[in-house]
Amino acid sequence: MKKKIKKVNAAILIIGNEILSGRTQDKNIAFICDWLNANCGISVSEARIIPDVEKTIIKNIQILSKKFNYVFTTGGIGPTHDDITAQSISKAFKVKYEFHKEAYSILEKYYGKKKFNDGRKKMAKMPRGSKLIYNPSSAAPGFITKNVISLPGVPSILNSMIDNCKKYLVKGQKIRSKTLNLFTVESNISKQLGLIQKKNKAFVDIGSYPFFRLGKIGVAIVTRSNSTQKLNNVNKEILKLVKQKKIQIFKVKSK
Amino acid sequence: MKKKIKKVNAAILIIGNEILSGRTQDKNIAFICDWLNANCGISVSEARIIPDVEKTIIKNIQILSKKFNYVFTTGGIGPTHDDITAQSISKAFKVKYEFHKEAYSILEKYYGKKKFNDGRKKMAKMPRGSKLIYNPSSAAPGFITKNVISLPGVPSILNSMIDNCKKYLVKGQKIRSKTLNLFTVESNISKQLGLIQKKNKAFVDIGSYPFFRLGKIGVAIVTRSNSTQKLNNVNKEILKLVKQKKIQIFKVKSK
Repeated sequence: MKKKIKKVNAAILIIGNEILSGRTQDKNIAFICDWLNANCGISVSEARIIPDVEKTIIKNIQILSKKFNYVFTTGGIGPTHDDITAQSISKAFKVKYEFHKEAYSILEKYYGKKKFNDGRKKMAKMPRGSKLIYNPSSAAPGFITKNVISLPGVPSILNSMIDNCKKYLVKGQKIRSKTLNLFTVESNISKQLGLIQKKNKAFVDIGSYPFFRLGKIGVAIVTRSNSTQKLNNVNKEILKLVKQKKIQIFKVKSK
Repeated sequence: MKKKIKKVNAAILIIGNEILSGRTQDKNIAFICDWLNANCGISVSEARIIPDVEKTIIKNIQILSKKFNYVFTTGGIGPTHDDITAQSISKAFKVKYEFHKEAYSILEKYYGKKKFNDGRKKMAKMPRGSKLIYNPSSAAPGFITKNVISLPGVPSILNSMIDNCKKYLVKGQKIRSKTLNLFTVESNISKQLGLIQKKNKAFVDIGSYPFFRLGKIGVAIVTRSNSTQKLNNVNKEILKLVKQKKIQIFKVKSK
């Protein structure tokens, strides 16, 4: 009997004018994609970067939360006027935007009653029914509302709290990958590689990425699959091609 | 009479499994956003990262090309089986996918007749009616099809050819920005900053971004506008607030 493969997918929604203006280089997409696959077997199927505009956030939350198992948002959960992620998610799901009791008390304790001003209180307001994602760096928690997980935009803070998302996520099967770094040009193997991909389309994904290292041009052949056996079989075929063509292997990496 | 402001916008569509797997850190979004604003006065309103899946590419091209003045795609225009951007754009616009005469002769000349194999020939196939974007690094040209500009995924090659897009683009008004780096915490100024933003909502966009430098916590207040005068007025208001609150200014930057 064919083994059932549990595919769980996600989208990432980066909220922030600073990314679209080119001021800030996003680092959260690569980090979340890698973390989700390695720790939860969840594949990211799409990422979007949108501005701090309420109706744009609402529309994207509605579309992506229907289309994917999970949506991870980053940015817009701080104390200033341009932080509108929580209220936009409330509107997207038509639930009340209100103080979360536990978040309020975490923040009040962290800042002390006297310094717990309106801006800081804002960080305790969330869509009704949200669950907290604790923040070991700077107290202000992230939250999960239905299938939408909201995290801060600052990479170091996001990185420190992402493990706390784990308990809310249904796990899928991890995608294994193998990378063959070859000293050749893409077009030297493109035809045969295409045939190998065609034959194994259902289970293994083959990518070809040129690189330039040690003064030489090369190609990284990346194979990805949730079946280690299928991955190995495809790599055997590719290695046979490499041998035929007398191509030098620079490095092999498995993940 | 009110001066008419010419707003030109764009979307970026990053095509590539390697970005969504977390293997590769995208660097093209920030570069294109910054280049478009500085050189053409075009604002990027949305960026999407999608996998190398034909129907996904087609759908996104159709949606984004209708919604925005321009769409910039990166990736998927090389010689291998996973390079399917050109044929997907052809399908999205229902035009023929065929050899572009000039692209063919550029590539034939570059590689020499003997080494001009099928993989390399593939890079001369484009949607009918496309115009070329010359590539000074590695010959294979990008192309513009209606309002969609297709560039390669390798950042160094993309960077070397982006100036060649200029002649195809209608210019808009450049967004000027001013950044005040302050040694304070966001919540210290969030209330007043919100009021300044509210009052100037129509013309100036104010962003607030925490940072950590020289062992101190700070906030970068970024104001953006296509009117230098309005930008200066808002910054005067913010500097008044900074003075009132006795906040130390770390750095001021204009762009």
